[in-house]
Amino acid sequence: MLSRTLPLSRPRVAVLLSGCGTHDGSEITESVSLLVSLDKRGASAVVFAPDKPQLHAVDHLTGEEQAGERNCLREAARIARGDAHCLSTLVAGEFDALLVPGGFGAAKNLSNFSSEGPDMTVDPLVASKLMDFSEQGKPVGLCCIAPVLAAKAIPGCSVTVGSSAESRAWPHAGAAGAIVDMGAVHVEKGAGGVHVDRSNNVVTAPAYMHRGTPGEVFDNVDEWVGTVLSRIKD
Amino acid sequence: MLSRTLPLSRPRVAVLLSGCGTHDGSEITESVSLLVSLDKRGASAVVFAPDKPQLHAVDHLTGEEQAGERNCLREAARIARGDAHCLSTLVAGEFDALLVPGGFGAAKNLSNFSSEGPDMTVDPLVASKLMDFSEQGKPVGLCCIAPVLAAKAIPGCSVTVGSSAESRAWPHAGAAGAIVDMGAVHVEKGAGGVHVDRSNNVVTAPAYMHRGTPGEVFDNVDEWVGTVLSRIKD
Repeated sequence: MLSRTLPLSRPRVAVLLSGCGTHDGSEITESVSLLVSLDKRGASAVVFAPDKPQLHAVDHLTGEEQAGERNCLREAARIARGDAHCLSTLVAGEFDALLVPGGFGAAKNLSNFSSEGPDMTVDPLVASKLMDFSEQGKPVGLCCIAPVLAAKAIPGCSVTVGSSAESRAWPHAGAAGAIVDMGAVHVEKGAGGVHVDRSNNVVTAPAYMHRGTPGEVFDNVDEWVGTVLSRIKD
Repeated sequence: MLSRTLPLSRPRVAVLLSGCGTHDGSEITESVSLLVSLDKRGASAVVFAPDKPQLHAVDHLTGEEQAGERNCLREAARIARGDAHCLSTLVAGEFDALLVPGGFGAAKNLSNFSSEGPDMTVDPLVASKLMDFSEQGKPVGLCCIAPVLAAKAIPGCSVTVGSSAESRAWPHAGAAGAIVDMGAVHVEKGAGGVHVDRSNNVVTAPAYMHRGTPGEVFDNVDEWVGTVLSRIKD
């Protein structure tokens, strides 16, 4: 896998994961798609996650909570083939962009959106890293449910989680209303859409907020990654 | 995700996983890449795994064994977003091909190659499903370390795990010698190669047997999947 020592000539992207699995950590297809896309587009990636317990572990076969504590960083290391780093060691100045995939881990481990909705708080370490990139004018990309983190942490930000109208195709569309209730702007997008907040350099995309296929999600993630990379300033 | 009820007009592919994580289950990048590739190529996929405990759980951050039993099927369901099925319910007649990605789970949960080498046995349920597809002339695709399963279970089979010469780029090349010791044929291939055993309709590729990048592995898996699909008989 990619080493922490990165060549200066390639865009250097920090990837923030929250575990390994859509119900309690990072969405796996989104995470792998973004790592594949970064690599194919010539960017280097380093994976980070908070070194703390997940809110809980979910049996992905039944959707029920299961026994046994799992740690965000140790589970994220499954996706990164071992090469994952504690979020506290992330220095924004060493990177050109930050990418955050979805999965409920963004709403359970990186924030408490899953229980608190618009009254949520972002994990303080996550919020500080988001602000570090934002204040340095470096693009921050978030997909699926992760845009709620930017909606809360980056003042005046606009994001998309796809559609605001709940349906079979958009089962978690209520997140759009919560984003508005937080004081942020929600921009409607289709399944393959990407939204750019040019003022804040925040790039968001629906990914698995839409009930899509693995190929559709890969394509949306790939376009989102390409858009983030295009917004890195020389 | 894809439903168990599949349209008859699309190739129907059974995917056999062994957990979720390269050190104790299915290799995640390979698994996601094959699901994305199948979808983009117009095939339907159903994920199966044995409903049994993994040999053990490995902390992917340290590489050390960790406490807590994990179940192959429940962990595989993380990759499949919940839509995973017990291997005992797999009926070869309902599918056109079988795909098995790598990760140490193939050598720890689907067989005991990791401890027994060439004297290994394949899990009896896994062996019977491999033989069902083989006897019906349906293509069986295996990548990374999973080709050892075919080398043991399908008599007279030829496979590749890439290079037989151990190096930094090929850290597990010893598997090639073990395959020969089992009485199978090993065919040398480069990182992007795909080997077809036309007599047995077995298609193999190195994937992460080579120390590649996510993009390189995605491309090798994609070519392997395409080759498997091209060998489905009308």
